[in-house]
Amino acid sequence: MSSQFHGVIPPVVTPRHPDGSIDTASLTNLTKHLLDGGVDGLFVLGSSAEVPYMTNAERDLVVSTIAEANNAAGDARVPLIVGANEQTTNRVIEEAKRVIDLGAEAIVVTSMYYAIGNVQETETHYRAIHEAIDKPIFAYDVPVRTHFKLPTDLLVKLGKEGVIAGVKDSSGDDVSFRQLLLAAKDVPNFDIFTGHEVVVDGALLGGAQGVVPGLGNVDPRGYKNLYEAAQAGDWAKAAAEQDRLADVFEIVYTPNGRVSGGAAGLGAFKTALQVMGIIESNTMSTPMLSLNAEETAAIKGILQRNGLV
Amino acid sequence: MSSQFHGVIPPVVTPRHPDGSIDTASLTNLTKHLLDGGVDGLFVLGSSAEVPYMTNAERDLVVSTIAEANNAAGDARVPLIVGANEQTTNRVIEEAKRVIDLGAEAIVVTSMYYAIGNVQETETHYRAIHEAIDKPIFAYDVPVRTHFKLPTDLLVKLGKEGVIAGVKDSSGDDVSFRQLLLAAKDVPNFDIFTGHEVVVDGALLGGAQGVVPGLGNVDPRGYKNLYEAAQAGDWAKAAAEQDRLADVFEIVYTPNGRVSGGAAGLGAFKTALQVMGIIESNTMSTPMLSLNAEETAAIKGILQRNGLV
Amino acid sequence: MSSQFHGVIPPVVTPRHPDGSIDTASLTNLTKHLLDGGVDGLFVLGSSAEVPYMTNAERDLVVSTIAEANNAAGDARVPLIVGANEQTTNRVIEEAKRVIDLGAEAIVVTSMYYAIGNVQETETHYRAIHEAIDKPIFAYDVPVRTHFKLPTDLLVKLGKEGVIAGVKDSSGDDVSFRQLLLAAKDVPNFDIFTGHEVVVDGALLGGAQGVVPGLGNVDPRGYKNLYEAAQAGDWAKAAAEQDRLADVFEIVYTPNGRVSGGAAGLGAFKTALQVMGIIESNTMSTPMLSLNAEETAAIKGILQRNGLV
Amino acid sequence: MSSQFHGVIPPVVTPRHPDGSIDTASLTNLTKHLLDGGVDGLFVLGSSAEVPYMTNAERDLVVSTIAEANNAAGDARVPLIVGANEQTTNRVIEEAKRVIDLGAEAIVVTSMYYAIGNVQETETHYRAIHEAIDKPIFAYDVPVRTHFKLPTDLLVKLGKEGVIAGVKDSSGDDVSFRQLLLAAKDVPNFDIFTGHEVVVDGALLGGAQGVVPGLGNVDPRGYKNLYEAAQAGDWAKAAAEQDRLADVFEIVYTPNGRVSGGAAGLGAFKTALQVMGIIESNTMSTPMLSLNAEETAAIKGILQRNGLV
Repeated sequence: MSSQFHGVIPPVVTPRHPDGSIDTASLTNLTKHLLDGGVDGLFVLGSSAEVPYMTNAERDLVVSTIAEANNAAGDARVPLIVGANEQTTNRVIEEAKRVIDLGAEAIVVTSMYYAIGNVQETETHYRAIHEAIDKPIFAYDVPVRTHFKLPTDLLVKLGKEGVIAGVKDSSGDDVSFRQLLLAAKDVPNFDIFTGHEVVVDGALLGGAQGVVPGLGNVDPRGYKNLYEAAQAGDWAKAAAEQDRLADVFEIVYTPNGRVSGGAAGLGAFKTALQVMGIIESNTMSTPMLSLNAEETAAIKGILQRNGLV
Repeated sequence: MSSQFHGVIPPVVTPRHPDGSIDTASLTNLTKHLLDGGVDGLFVLGSSAEVPYMTNAERDLVVSTIAEANNAAGDARVPLIVGANEQTTNRVIEEAKRVIDLGAEAIVVTSMYYAIGNVQETETHYRAIHEAIDKPIFAYDVPVRTHFKLPTDLLVKLGKEGVIAGVKDSSGDDVSFRQLLLAAKDVPNFDIFTGHEVVVDGALLGGAQGVVPGLGNVDPRGYKNLYEAAQAGDWAKAAAEQDRLADVFEIVYTPNGRVSGGAAGLGAFKTALQVMGIIESNTMSTPMLSLNAEETAAIKGILQRNGLV
Repeated sequence: MSSQFHGVIPPVVTPRHPDGSIDTASLTNLTKHLLDGGVDGLFVLGSSAEVPYMTNAERDLVVSTIAEANNAAGDARVPLIVGANEQTTNRVIEEAKRVIDLGAEAIVVTSMYYAIGNVQETETHYRAIHEAIDKPIFAYDVPVRTHFKLPTDLLVKLGKEGVIAGVKDSSGDDVSFRQLLLAAKDVPNFDIFTGHEVVVDGALLGGAQGVVPGLGNVDPRGYKNLYEAAQAGDWAKAAAEQDRLADVFEIVYTPNGRVSGGAAGLGAFKTALQVMGIIESNTMSTPMLSLNAEETAAIKGILQRNGLV
Repeated sequence: MSSQFHGVIPPVVTPRHPDGSIDTASLTNLTKHLLDGGVDGLFVLGSSAEVPYMTNAERDLVVSTIAEANNAAGDARVPLIVGANEQTTNRVIEEAKRVIDLGAEAIVVTSMYYAIGNVQETETHYRAIHEAIDKPIFAYDVPVRTHFKLPTDLLVKLGKEGVIAGVKDSSGDDVSFRQLLLAAKDVPNFDIFTGHEVVVDGALLGGAQGVVPGLGNVDPRGYKNLYEAAQAGDWAKAAAEQDRLADVFEIVYTPNGRVSGGAAGLGAFKTALQVMGIIESNTMSTPMLSLNAEETAAIKGILQRNGLV
């Protein structure tokens, strides 16, 4: 099947200075780190970017900074897939237009949130956005945030009609994910990504086109190796690489209840990048707490035992 | 106890023209209808206003339209309490500043949504907003939308310190509501409102200062009568009025599964107002469906049996 | 409307010896305490009895012990309403027959649990049980345990047809509770009870026939006073008594996270009864932890400030 | 690592006569069908058996019938792993002793349900059961029914201490499943099974010891082929077989909302077995509806296109 987007497409985290402002130098450096790691695309303004916590001005700055670093990469340049994170249809359209102007080559859109919709409204939502913009749209299935699971039937229907160009799945529902892969396998230019870091081998075995791992910020090369092993049909190697990456993923469990679940996971990625010297500070967006020295030491230990520092 | 805001404070719905644009003439007329009904305040940009579905430009237009109609009412003018509906702290602050500039006398703020926070982050959230603006803040407890129940202890603590000026409770949890009323009864200038239309008598019996009923758009005088009966200690009369209003509330159940839950309730209020000649169209925000002729007829029947048309 | 069961009907807790066996002497004493407190019925084998944790032999022993103490009370004897706590239809029927043989005058039945049903199956469930036994059946709406909210329409329909004789509501949904009261107000011999301790005044104001408060084990007279004030139309007195009881209810919050939520609430009732000298031990059913000395001291303080010890 | 139980261990469905009684002849025939299909064990009294809907007498009859058919199979005899489906600790122990007397070689136990526990109580629950019986215990993680996710840390701890002998995972959480596989990979005689029909290839790739697929009633040989391909490291073949089985699994979606979700899935398995001539009737336990002629025809079509009839 023809495919527009595939491979390893990490959701780029957003470095901040200790005063809370966006650290564009670190963001540029992180973008280079990812491109050097062989990634196939960049997922910008995703949950891992702390996009819910950014003002619109900050969102614009992040997209333009990454776009500039990506454009400077010459042949290593990769597609930018950018989240248009807003709660309802018309607000998404405004957001999408803004990020497209800044360089987005595809848009990622959740179902509505805070607003309480249903299947029919969700279909109207995606159709209206598709009519309003001229870039490919990925449906982002993230019920832990939206509290609405995108139905497989709807996704396949919208894919066949060209309303959406694929799905980023963070549903945590591997059964429906496999059924989506099967139901969509004959749909051209419909690319399905998993957002879950530790089940990538199984997702690729089932036919997924790509992977959007937050942990890919820390170890892009590891995910690339996993992806290439899968492409080569060497599943034992893919599983071994996955197991190694699952051990690296243990960094997200180092903050034992001190910070919120969101701050723990994203904070761990940032802290690892700080330990690795790729970004300057592990500062989190308000009101999230940043990880402390003890948690940083635990993360460093995990990175060391996996040869990442 | 001293109180800043109390009584009947309906959340004003947002009339739209059939083409989807805001119908400012109908909104002005609705505002007059509410002031004529004896309301004690206006709750602007609440869920009943379909605020999640509005662009920022639309939000501004709604606030300024209501503010103008309210200011034109002379002695009948009432306080404007305005929702600052955004998903995280810094975005709320931007939103709050905008609506304060347009006339908001108090701000209503939920816990974060889409973002996944915890109690400590929620406390920081309210404190940061309080530091950034100089108007009273109501915490809006609406877990069906935010998926986070505001803890009673936190609300009382923030109330005692003056960080928040009260609570609008749409939690659907009458046990915690009563416990909040008891725990806060000695906190000055801390006003607690229920957002539930059919349990207002019990809420006032328990000590609530006010009520924010969506149905109050349709029958503001009924809620005023209920409130005044309660103030006079005539609880049998209050309960009888509540029972009558609960029958009027049956309008929200007329759309039997054809539209989403949100569209059913808000659509019923708009349709009733249309039937009553107060607004021109019952058009809903995209992507919600509007109620149809059959549903309108059912609503008209309920209004008739309650003497509202 | 005619009514079969009404008033204060506390769910009797189950005293255990420190070795875990049922303490029938304490249970007899507790039954006397409740009858002395003027209760109008006894709710046996409810959640407050820790019924889920009892073997069938223990359930039988508890019903027969309470029945004997109740029968010995002469004119003070009250009806026994007994839970038939099982997960599916045929298992409920077996359980119901057993407790009816031991003296149950009415049966309390939840929707199915662990099994995942729907509305139609729930209707069949109640109809099948009604056909199999010849005692009145109360539907017990407790979605926090069953994860299924009994629909108001279904309850009213089953009530009108005589399949069920009433509802014990522990749904935590005061809006649907009020709507049930309204919808059922003309149904004869259909009695609606609230299971929530701190909103009894509002429930009675709305027309509830009875109350099943776990806290009624500790202060049966207080609930009786509240009920009688409501019957007399003295709502200010009812609300004041409710506020006092809500303060007594603070005992359930003394175990600050050390034990499970279930063990905290039921453990607090047992501990209060132990402090008051009505039962010998506050031992909980396996695997729940019993409250400790520190928690007992805190509970004693709350009882003292409310004049209960 | 040493392993006690592994491979394909289908959860045997329970045939009923049209009058609702257990059809032991069909159950014997089904058992033979599974043994002929090369299964490595039989999972008795699981959710797929409709165990929640059975009386204790029915449960006993089912275990003894399967045990007899299994014992009659000579060299083809496989281990019996039997569910002890009860809501709390002491009730589980009674249930476990009964099924062990009837031939259970291992026991499957969920966390408590209806009762609302926590992690500490769950640990006590498993330890108490382990002390009371002398057969291996599998923890059954099925939060869709128990509404409690068994924590990975607890499972690994109990596994290392020999309190539990493994886990049957129906959590729908593939991330935690992979983390459990990794965390437990060095624990001897700790066997981990997935209960999800369509992600078996990924589960085995990640290191799972076994699979408990309801669909294995219908196509035991298919799952055996998948398992053997995985054992041989032929992952492409495993994935292809998985995709074929996922297509067979479409039978569970033929009842389009007419029956409950539980009745749809289990009813589809029974209906397929009826179409295949292995059991006589597709009758479901009260109060579940059985699938009708139209749904049967749709299922037959799916079986035909997969060569199963």
